[in-house]
Amino acid sequence: MPMSLRRLLFGDALPTAHEVYHRLTKVQALAVFSSDALSSVAYATEEILLVLVLAGSSALGLSVPIALVIAVLLVIVGTSYYQTIHGYPSGGGAYIVAHDNLGVWPGLIAAGALLIDYVLTVAVSVTAGVAAVTSAFPVLLPFRVLLCLLAIALIAWANLRGVRESGRLFSIPTYGFVCILLTLIVVGLARAITGGLAPVPSQIPKSTVGGGEVLMAFLVLRAFASGCTALTGIEAISNGIPAFQKPEADNAGKTLLAMVALLTTMFLGITVLAHISRVSPTEAETVVSQVGRLVFGSGPLYLALQAGTALILILAANTSFADFPRLSSILARDRYVPRQLANLGDRLVFNNGIIALALLASTLVVVFGGQTHRLIPLYAVGVFLAFTLSQAGMVLHWRKEGGARWRLKAAVNGLGAVATGVVLTVIVGSKLIYGAWIVALLIPVSGWFFHTVRRHYESVAEQLSLDGLVPERWTGLASRRRHKVVVPVSGMHRGTLAALRFARSLSKDVTAVVVDVEPGVTSRVRKKWPSWGHDVPLIVLKSPYRSTLGPLLEYLEEVDQREPKRGLGVVVLPEFVTATWWQNFLHNQTAQLIKKALVYRRGQAAKDRVIIDVPYHLWH
Amino acid sequence: MPMSLRRLLFGDALPTAHEVYHRLTKVQALAVFSSDALSSVAYATEEILLVLVLAGSSALGLSVPIALVIAVLLVIVGTSYYQTIHGYPSGGGAYIVAHDNLGVWPGLIAAGALLIDYVLTVAVSVTAGVAAVTSAFPVLLPFRVLLCLLAIALIAWANLRGVRESGRLFSIPTYGFVCILLTLIVVGLARAITGGLAPVPSQIPKSTVGGGEVLMAFLVLRAFASGCTALTGIEAISNGIPAFQKPEADNAGKTLLAMVALLTTMFLGITVLAHISRVSPTEAETVVSQVGRLVFGSGPLYLALQAGTALILILAANTSFADFPRLSSILARDRYVPRQLANLGDRLVFNNGIIALALLASTLVVVFGGQTHRLIPLYAVGVFLAFTLSQAGMVLHWRKEGGARWRLKAAVNGLGAVATGVVLTVIVGSKLIYGAWIVALLIPVSGWFFHTVRRHYESVAEQLSLDGLVPERWTGLASRRRHKVVVPVSGMHRGTLAALRFARSLSKDVTAVVVDVEPGVTSRVRKKWPSWGHDVPLIVLKSPYRSTLGPLLEYLEEVDQREPKRGLGVVVLPEFVTATWWQNFLHNQTAQLIKKALVYRRGQAAKDRVIIDVPYHLWH
Repeated sequence: MPMSLRRLLFGDALPTAHEVYHRLTKVQALAVFSSDALSSVAYATEEILLVLVLAGSSALGLSVPIALVIAVLLVIVGTSYYQTIHGYPSGGGAYIVAHDNLGVWPGLIAAGALLIDYVLTVAVSVTAGVAAVTSAFPVLLPFRVLLCLLAIALIAWANLRGVRESGRLFSIPTYGFVCILLTLIVVGLARAITGGLAPVPSQIPKSTVGGGEVLMAFLVLRAFASGCTALTGIEAISNGIPAFQKPEADNAGKTLLAMVALLTTMFLGITVLAHISRVSPTEAETVVSQVGRLVFGSGPLYLALQAGTALILILAANTSFADFPRLSSILARDRYVPRQLANLGDRLVFNNGIIALALLASTLVVVFGGQTHRLIPLYAVGVFLAFTLSQAGMVLHWRKEGGARWRLKAAVNGLGAVATGVVLTVIVGSKLIYGAWIVALLIPVSGWFFHTVRRHYESVAEQLSLDGLVPERWTGLASRRRHKVVVPVSGMHRGTLAALRFARSLSKDVTAVVVDVEPGVTSRVRKKWPSWGHDVPLIVLKSPYRSTLGPLLEYLEEVDQREPKRGLGVVVLPEFVTATWWQNFLHNQTAQLIKKALVYRRGQAAKDRVIIDVPYHLWH
Repeated sequence: MPMSLRRLLFGDALPTAHEVYHRLTKVQALAVFSSDALSSVAYATEEILLVLVLAGSSALGLSVPIALVIAVLLVIVGTSYYQTIHGYPSGGGAYIVAHDNLGVWPGLIAAGALLIDYVLTVAVSVTAGVAAVTSAFPVLLPFRVLLCLLAIALIAWANLRGVRESGRLFSIPTYGFVCILLTLIVVGLARAITGGLAPVPSQIPKSTVGGGEVLMAFLVLRAFASGCTALTGIEAISNGIPAFQKPEADNAGKTLLAMVALLTTMFLGITVLAHISRVSPTEAETVVSQVGRLVFGSGPLYLALQAGTALILILAANTSFADFPRLSSILARDRYVPRQLANLGDRLVFNNGIIALALLASTLVVVFGGQTHRLIPLYAVGVFLAFTLSQAGMVLHWRKEGGARWRLKAAVNGLGAVATGVVLTVIVGSKLIYGAWIVALLIPVSGWFFHTVRRHYESVAEQLSLDGLVPERWTGLASRRRHKVVVPVSGMHRGTLAALRFARSLSKDVTAVVVDVEPGVTSRVRKKWPSWGHDVPLIVLKSPYRSTLGPLLEYLEEVDQREPKRGLGVVVLPEFVTATWWQNFLHNQTAQLIKKALVYRRGQAAKDRVIIDVPYHLWH
């Protein structure tokens, strides 16, 4: 990309010294770290109802007890993470906690689960945010995939520019969403008590399940599993402790408690309201939107609710754009993923992680047609696996550390581990055939991938190491040797002349070859060779398959085999360089292809081939 | 891509000598060339109704007179092309006819219009084909974008493998579609006459237009314009005359007449049936599917109808995958588009054209949410522009050629030109704000693009020409010169040693530089330099922005300026090459980036920089 365009899009490069952190107050930190958790209120209730409705409208009432169980779970997991914060005051992500306490493999599994879940958070949040918009403007419904892709591209672009997790910027949408949602709950409940809320007449049959109690129990478990998506994002604060003002752990703990309280209230409130107003889930409009229309009408308050929902969901997706690149850069430093993921870009952000996340999430959105409820069975598996591993790790952590009341602390985290472990089993069991199998497969695959990458890096370091080499043997060989030089010619032009001249300055053993792909070109080269060819012999190679590469490679190998002992094989490539970047697309780039093929082809002979590029610059 | 995977996917390479053509019988040719034209029956009626329904259900009856006008137009254009076939027996595409008779610019405009239309044919046919499938299986409706993308990928893959326009292969779906559609019309009309066809009760208000006659007239024109998509593909036979058995033009002419007769019958039949059964267009089910269900029920005949419709639409898309690469290769030979589009791939097909078409059509599908009726306003503009230019060109052709009855022939084509010109005006006028503006903008832009590309190629040829050079001045300079050699070092490893050794064999003036991005690496290099650095001086460059490239380029420029008169600037890059292709993705490829930056950076100094790659091969 040309420099000027790059600057316009992404801004000027920032010097490394500019990497500073601002500490966040509790109020700011709540805004920054809770968007992922709080935003799940936008879809968790709906996902419960979507499963229950399969059993008919009479089953929808089960949503309230299910939500209560999830609320209890929220408190257990919240308390558990409260302890993690105090146990790992410098930041205790699941990868670090599991790696430290349970070992390498549990750490890698936790890391894989988290990375997969970050991708899903983006996909689920963006599709749910777009659903909030299309609920208000149904005319946009056919374009939801496109809208999702645009939203992902926009968030990725903002992150490539280096949007900071700025407390001020995040406070408005987060607290705005909390306010409008609490207003909705209060007004809605008040109107329900005073009888001012007319329930929606249901068009769904009262009961549709014929399979009896077993099938019904399975549906309840699935509904519970879907509702557990409300817990996603609860771990965010424990990863971000260093961003808090002092005393960090203390402030982080208090913020976590506030977040759990808010989340529980909002989730229960929406579920109860949806139940009272007998809302049932539809393809075209979200449950929150339906409840909002009933309570607020279709006026400005309703539009504010939809806008607030869409915004906080975008923020939730944005959180993953901070977390995914951060975790993958940590993994890259530990050499478990490609090291490009640890490169800090011009704007001090991990560009490659951001781009990878955007591409993966976009793929999910396209494959699942931009529909939240199709993505939900994949979601939460990773989160709960990470929860379980991290809490189990904390139990060992307390035992190792000992200290006052370590048994109590271990018991609290133990309860968290058992609870999340049981929920994980329920989630996997009840949603396996609906898509959870994909994630259940991907997590071990990612673990294996991390392992393979690490092994490769270790092997490269070993192969490149100077250990065992004798310096004198290498420096002694630096005398001039007679190189065998080959110049591939694609036509008689100034670029060819420049390459020939450089080749002759290197060695007296130069051969030019022309591959006979276009007979007209070959005969023109032959005709002009006597006057322009310096005294270099010209060889014509036949090409029955129209390939320039094949015959050239064969010729080079033949030469190597003929004189295996003589000097280094050197290929000099004339390459003309266009005046502007776009003009490059107008040329065949044969020189590039030859370079790639020469460098990357296998076999012993490949080892001593040197490639020389002689550019000839066009001026317009 | 590794060779083995490539072979598995695309098959073995074919030698150039294998390029042979089989001549087609009239029956086979009709199957091969008519899928595009005949398949438009699947959506043309629906598009008319979709516009008329805006005026209420009472306006739907206007579809029959509109269809009759379109049928007359079909006969006029058909006759016109019948003459083109005899005027250009070696193949008379709009580009060739317009270029030959009207001049360069009309030719380029026609070419641009055609290329755009081929892309739209793929998008429209594939979305309509997927609509036929989702009409039968509504559960697939949410995945229509994904299904469209998969269909495009599949067709592209088949074409990259080199699917031939085989008469036998195409006959089954084409004639199958014709049979089932004619059966539908005959059975439907028979049941309607005997009173056995119960019209669908309409839920649409009888009249909704309040704007009076002007608005109504506009709607009728728009409906007519949408219905004119029935004419797309009618020119296919005139492009493919050389594929017919002898006498080619004669056989092609007869085939064209048969096609026009079939198309007119089927289009009128479906329109009348839809009118009798009072079908109105819906989002979820196509008009043909609704008519099919009414006449056939939901049994095997209905499923055969949907399958036949989907298949012929896929074939229609496939036609564009033959036409687009063919036309763009002709344009590439005339140097109006990038010459890569003229490259024959391993399988004797124009790979790049196929890939470009697939990408463009996929973009359209995603942007327009996979919905046929949103694409229709863009469609037909290009076709009718090409029709008009080509018919106008034919008028001049007959005048130039003279001969018996040239005035009559010119009059027939003149009528065609006027008719299609008028329709073009109607289409652009009535659909401009609904999307036709995009195409109206793109066509001149593509003409400008062709012009710019041509100018670039002419300029390059001039810049590279040897005219005016004196051979002796070039060959005389081939004596050995002392080159200034710089070796960028990224760490002390075996690859570095190999590069240093080659650099020393080239020249005594070698400098090594290390860019200080990671302080640990820099100090390790410094420590090992005394024993391994041959006697080459090592320079450390500071890098406040973490960039390896920036400081290196600055240093090279500085050296150039210090000693502008001394030899060539040579950069020797150590590059380690991994044992398998995928391992490449695990490394930073800094060497590649440096090469790109050195070759493509601008400025006078760039002109004399030679880049040397010394690969070091890893063995596992």
